[in-house]
Amino acid sequence: MSRSILMLPGDGIGPEIVAEAEKVLRKINEQFGLELHFESALVGGAAIDETDTPLPEDTLDKARKADAILLGAVGGPKWDKRPMASRPEKGLLGLRSNLELFANLRPAILYPQLASASSLKPEVVSGLDIMIVRELTGGIYFGQPRGVRELESGERQGYNTYAYTESEIRRIGRVAFEAAQQRGKKLCSVDKANVLEVTVLWREIMEDLRREYPDVELSHMYVDNAAMQLVRAPKQFDVIVTGNMFGDILSDEAAMLTGSIGMLPSASLNSEKQGMYEPCHGSAPDIAGKGIANPLATILSGAMMLRYSLGEEKAAEAIEAAVSKVLDQGLRTADIMSSEGRKVSTREMGDAVLAAL
Amino acid sequence: MSRSILMLPGDGIGPEIVAEAEKVLRKINEQFGLELHFESALVGGAAIDETDTPLPEDTLDKARKADAILLGAVGGPKWDKRPMASRPEKGLLGLRSNLELFANLRPAILYPQLASASSLKPEVVSGLDIMIVRELTGGIYFGQPRGVRELESGERQGYNTYAYTESEIRRIGRVAFEAAQQRGKKLCSVDKANVLEVTVLWREIMEDLRREYPDVELSHMYVDNAAMQLVRAPKQFDVIVTGNMFGDILSDEAAMLTGSIGMLPSASLNSEKQGMYEPCHGSAPDIAGKGIANPLATILSGAMMLRYSLGEEKAAEAIEAAVSKVLDQGLRTADIMSSEGRKVSTREMGDAVLAAL
Ligand SMILES: CC(C)[C@H](C(=O)O)[C@@H](O)C(=O)O
Ligand SMILES: CC(C)[C@H](C(=O)O)[C@@H](O)C(=O)O
Repeated sequence: MSRSILMLPGDGIGPEIVAEAEKVLRKINEQFGLELHFESALVGGAAIDETDTPLPEDTLDKARKADAILLGAVGGPKWDKRPMASRPEKGLLGLRSNLELFANLRPAILYPQLASASSLKPEVVSGLDIMIVRELTGGIYFGQPRGVRELESGERQGYNTYAYTESEIRRIGRVAFEAAQQRGKKLCSVDKANVLEVTVLWREIMEDLRREYPDVELSHMYVDNAAMQLVRAPKQFDVIVTGNMFGDILSDEAAMLTGSIGMLPSASLNSEKQGMYEPCHGSAPDIAGKGIANPLATILSGAMMLRYSLGEEKAAEAIEAAVSKVLDQGLRTADIMSSEGRKVSTREMGDAVLAAL
Repeated sequence: MSRSILMLPGDGIGPEIVAEAEKVLRKINEQFGLELHFESALVGGAAIDETDTPLPEDTLDKARKADAILLGAVGGPKWDKRPMASRPEKGLLGLRSNLELFANLRPAILYPQLASASSLKPEVVSGLDIMIVRELTGGIYFGQPRGVRELESGERQGYNTYAYTESEIRRIGRVAFEAAQQRGKKLCSVDKANVLEVTVLWREIMEDLRREYPDVELSHMYVDNAAMQLVRAPKQFDVIVTGNMFGDILSDEAAMLTGSIGMLPSASLNSEKQGMYEPCHGSAPDIAGKGIANPLATILSGAMMLRYSLGEEKAAEAIEAAVSKVLDQGLRTADIMSSEGRKVSTREMGDAVLAAL
């Protein structure tokens, strides 16, 4: 059974890190006889520069046909002054919505080898392993109406709409309950139900779902408190489920608790388990082209792809084991470098993972 | 010149901590001959229990007439199942909007005596001193339309509106630029201008204001990145300005970086400098009535009141010095207790501050 993988390097450090992940996936492909086929396409600023649009038709076509997508990152100062509708980010958002990739899984895991990189005290974060399930195709990111209008007074008003339907909430809720079932069986739903009506509905639907998953312990937390609790005692969490905007904020906060965001992959899935996989970090334009970026989050995104979209658990584990091995060997890119490590380039790190496979 | 202060104890630990702050303010009143007059009224759950509404007319009347308000906290599980419109929080939100208290100042300061309480490494947070300026009467908290509607498909949709006008942004911007002028002259405006139109306008207005404050260095940051940077390297910030919802999240995150949220006061001001002052922590129903809550955030809110609404800088400093002194003496309520401290009750802490004045 042949499967097609679409590579979308994107902007900034994207091409460098995706190149390393592709090397690793090609080797795994051989070793495990997976019959993966690789294509690539333009997205984000790279697509704007070539075709004047952040999500060319050709890219969207290829994306629809692919079994899975590996994305580097999009965006950078070069395109920051463009109007909203033609910014690199629209390429990413367009892929998410066109493919209905509503379920964003963002693990925040502290690698024991990198514990000292965290800005938190070791006892607060050692062993940290949280899964954030973020709704990705609804909420205020896509709500209508939106824009800037002129009021009768003559002044302008900017406005956006934060909306969720019952079915949108239910489908992301199920993903989160199921993730909790396969982990520590604890699910915390984050909302602002004391202020926002849309999240009152959110909380109600999560409560409804509770009955279908009696083995999962469901709790609710206001988003301001969640932002605090992540700092105070992050290990209290197992799985967190929340909307698009709160998820954007909390998943980045949680990722940074580990101190090594250059290690964290993510998956965005639709209901057919077709998925887009990308590192949690962004395009890092300041270090682009220098060959020093950390490719491990992208390589680990490849492992998530094998697990969630291709059903190749063994191959996924092989990559994860190889990454753990290079960390044990003391190899470190600049972002995770400490006094005991040996500093390596993007390519050297990729080669080391290949060798460890 | 006689000034009137309205005390709103509210719910949970509110009455206990406000009682201690009132003792301190009465003593300062005598010592400095301030001619303060004290009244009190019901708000939140306490008001619901007595009058069936979270913000009785009488309270709103008194609040309008007061020069300043000292609030404890509102809310608790007892009222959590009530419909949104009649929850304790509506009392707080109603005061904010009726008095147009648009400027919320939330300092996140690490007291050197309490450095070990933080979950972050000492080198990351020692000397931390951030001021978060949060817009408090607009944005998604108050945006219309809002509610839950039935779609043609028969399913329900919850919706809220995130909106800001130019003038709303400009007035909070000015408060923030002025705060920066009096501090480290650095202002970071937090938005999500790569996704939300309303924050594109926000960023544009902040840029406009830059010209009026050439001595302040303005920067912009996306909210997800801000949530990360607060964890990674919080001392990079001086003043942060942001909207109501992002400010709710980031100010709580920043407060928790100190590990001693029981120490942090806040001010909510209108354009006449009339203000409502309250601790950053909430009503803590789990410890209410036990006499163990930390009254210092409320006492320090009293100091902020003297500074911002009453123009009594010397009196404010006297309270702050007294608080610092009791910390030096090693007195600690349970929330900030460490091995070297001497544990005291809410009342003992209040008495110690009185004695130190
Ligand atoms: C680039 C941006 C549009 C995006 C988002 O806000 O979703 C990013 O921050 C992310 O979290 O994937
Ligand atoms: C109680 C709640 C409505 C309030 C808010 O969200 O503004 C609180 O969290 C705060 O930050 O003062």
